[in-house]
Amino acid sequence: MDRRSGDDTGRIEAFSDGVFAIAITLLVIEIGVPHMNDAPLGATLFGELADQWPSYLAYVISFLQIGVIWANHHNRFRFIVRSDHGLLFLNILFLMCVAFIPFPTALLAEYLGETTTESATAGIVYAGSLMVTAFFFTLLWLYVAGSRRLLDQSLDLTIIRAMTRRYVLGMLFYILAFAISFVSLAASLVLLVVLALLFILPEASERTPERPSRRSQRRIR
Amino acid sequence: MDRRSGDDTGRIEAFSDGVFAIAITLLVIEIGVPHMNDAPLGATLFGELADQWPSYLAYVISFLQIGVIWANHHNRFRFIVRSDHGLLFLNILFLMCVAFIPFPTALLAEYLGETTTESATAGIVYAGSLMVTAFFFTLLWLYVAGSRRLLDQSLDLTIIRAMTRRYVLGMLFYILAFAISFVSLAASLVLLVVLALLFILPEASERTPERPSRRSQRRIR
Amino acid sequence: MDRRSGDDTGRIEAFSDGVFAIAITLLVIEIGVPHMNDAPLGATLFGELADQWPSYLAYVISFLQIGVIWANHHNRFRFIVRSDHGLLFLNILFLMCVAFIPFPTALLAEYLGETTTESATAGIVYAGSLMVTAFFFTLLWLYVAGSRRLLDQSLDLTIIRAMTRRYVLGMLFYILAFAISFVSLAASLVLLVVLALLFILPEASERTPERPSRRSQRRIR
Amino acid sequence: MDRRSGDDTGRIEAFSDGVFAIAITLLVIEIGVPHMNDAPLGATLFGELADQWPSYLAYVISFLQIGVIWANHHNRFRFIVRSDHGLLFLNILFLMCVAFIPFPTALLAEYLGETTTESATAGIVYAGSLMVTAFFFTLLWLYVAGSRRLLDQSLDLTIIRAMTRRYVLGMLFYILAFAISFVSLAASLVLLVVLALLFILPEASERTPERPSRRSQRRIR
Repeated sequence: MDRRSGDDTGRIEAFSDGVFAIAITLLVIEIGVPHMNDAPLGATLFGELADQWPSYLAYVISFLQIGVIWANHHNRFRFIVRSDHGLLFLNILFLMCVAFIPFPTALLAEYLGETTTESATAGIVYAGSLMVTAFFFTLLWLYVAGSRRLLDQSLDLTIIRAMTRRYVLGMLFYILAFAISFVSLAASLVLLVVLALLFILPEASERTPERPSRRSQRRIR
Repeated sequence: MDRRSGDDTGRIEAFSDGVFAIAITLLVIEIGVPHMNDAPLGATLFGELADQWPSYLAYVISFLQIGVIWANHHNRFRFIVRSDHGLLFLNILFLMCVAFIPFPTALLAEYLGETTTESATAGIVYAGSLMVTAFFFTLLWLYVAGSRRLLDQSLDLTIIRAMTRRYVLGMLFYILAFAISFVSLAASLVLLVVLALLFILPEASERTPERPSRRSQRRIR
Repeated sequence: MDRRSGDDTGRIEAFSDGVFAIAITLLVIEIGVPHMNDAPLGATLFGELADQWPSYLAYVISFLQIGVIWANHHNRFRFIVRSDHGLLFLNILFLMCVAFIPFPTALLAEYLGETTTESATAGIVYAGSLMVTAFFFTLLWLYVAGSRRLLDQSLDLTIIRAMTRRYVLGMLFYILAFAISFVSLAASLVLLVVLALLFILPEASERTPERPSRRSQRRIR
Repeated sequence: MDRRSGDDTGRIEAFSDGVFAIAITLLVIEIGVPHMNDAPLGATLFGELADQWPSYLAYVISFLQIGVIWANHHNRFRFIVRSDHGLLFLNILFLMCVAFIPFPTALLAEYLGETTTESATAGIVYAGSLMVTAFFFTLLWLYVAGSRRLLDQSLDLTIIRAMTRRYVLGMLFYILAFAISFVSLAASLVLLVVLALLFILPEASERTPERPSRRSQRRIR
């Protein structure tokens, strides 16, 4: 099994990166060009464009989310040096969530400016989709951290535990954002943006002083 | 001819991975945002979203299928160390099937909840598309296994035969799923999901004890 | 300038491969799911699907075309070891043609089964688009072959000339297919398919006996 | 922090390249196939296609813009040998602008041939989007150039300053194109095309005589 490792995680990363890059770039498709023929009399194109603010907002929020998930996925795979079928399967389920994000984004864009009931539903589905994505990401990490043989053996157990805490904590905040979405869409979206900005900050493990590791050798190729 | 090998299969893999990643991510496009203006009076957005369950189901099944086909394609190319024009051509035909999958998926999503005749037609086309994809994948493998010079020379003939059995058997089950789709759409879809889950399991060759091989050296670069 | 070469052609190839993979996978988007609500009374889904044969045909032909153009682009870049701004610019123009192909494909799919005038127009635009693509590919090669410093210095002049002949000849046949499209759409499409199948055949240079070259060393990394 | 560098910029580049390749290839989606059923009596398909000239023009201009931005992004990352969270974040914001370009392109395509007010609005949004993209690109460079530790240490300060001048100057011209778009759409578009063509020219640093550098060694892998 060992013989396929390095290359295998490499190709899983490359495939995942492809899915991330496409999902993030497809987000723009949900922004429709306003058709002046359907617009009320006296409407200007500028006004119609301004009325589409929910589309731009949904685009920005989702772009941030997928961008940050990508950065975290990437950071995790730097520590994963081996692959097995469980990891492969969990990663496919995780990517299934990531590639799905353009749909709740389009939903949010469509209904953010509508009646309270509809925008609430859209917000709940949106926050829920991100929560499920965070759940599978955490599951992926717990699986890898649990069966340590997939991890770089030179990794400190304290670092692994710090990461587990980080992801479980993040997971709890995504659950919180989902819960809040039932009460206030705006508060939920703000929390999601804050979460994205927090997750782009350096991890504890990256603030520790450098130390030579097997990783640096893996990077040479 | 030898001089292009390693690099060539590498670029065929990279191109194929791109097609896989795009086809799998395009699946989400078939899920449309429900338009409340067209909805019957009294309908809620939540209800309309729930009514779209065929779209989500089709998304999940196709994502699994393409994900598993990708994993198998990837596993096969680990053993292919040389490329020729036959392989190049068969791989293009195979990718033509993979990139086509979003269409039968959209068809299934549209008609899964409709009248029996229409959902049956959609199911037959769906199972048929996957069967044809499996057929070209098997053909690709038979071509490579037949002209062994494209394979890693250190591969045991028993391993090659085990793989051939695996793919021919899988092919037969895809034919079965296609046949069943004429009788029961649900049974056909269940079989397709089971097949995907089975094909993500480790192969016989991967359960054998490790042994040094030329492959491990190829991975170094 | 030399210092950026190897890496530069590598990244141009990777970017080009991305464009090829996306353009080829986007082709499926032009195949619409038939809507039974709009269908005439008594129509079956199977019948409506069968009526869409122009879409499937256009998909297959364009997939072959882009697949073969990809293979040829790839084969050419194996000989290009240096990049300059002219090459970069010509390659962007060439990719602009490749990424455009989904549009004439959709046009052909829409009008292939329609009145003679309209299907003729669609066929002319289709053959014309492929002709312009072939033109920029030939231009790219002539530029590279002309300023030989971009090429692998170990390449025989006879091989370079054989390739130039191959591309100029191919170019002439694409012009022929364009000319024929004014008279017979079917004949033009047949010629385009034959051209694709011919261009997937081994090149003269690949049939010559192996000889060690600088290329094999470049492949090591 | 150092231990992740080389690989990290590599994966940032690969992800960015994916976004560039997808955004540039999605541009073709905005070109719709004309529907003859909606066309006025006596209209020909050829005439309807010719009437779509704004779509083709918008496609060509945006393809050039994204192609040139890609080339410049690529050239810059050749000098960036380390990554940190600021760079990661600024790059995500920059890609957010790049991936957005298909939307103003579709807007321009839709309204370029319409009434003066609407085409002016579309032109202002288009030039504005490119200006914001240029702004984030310049910001990215200023960040990297400011904290020189992310840069190849062998880079001359004069080269860094020449690049800073180049980007700040380019930025000013994009602001100019935006300002002009309020007066004349045509003049603004011409300036944008000229800017793209200028930015594809060799940089000052590339015209200096070759000298061995750490970069050439990085390229070996």
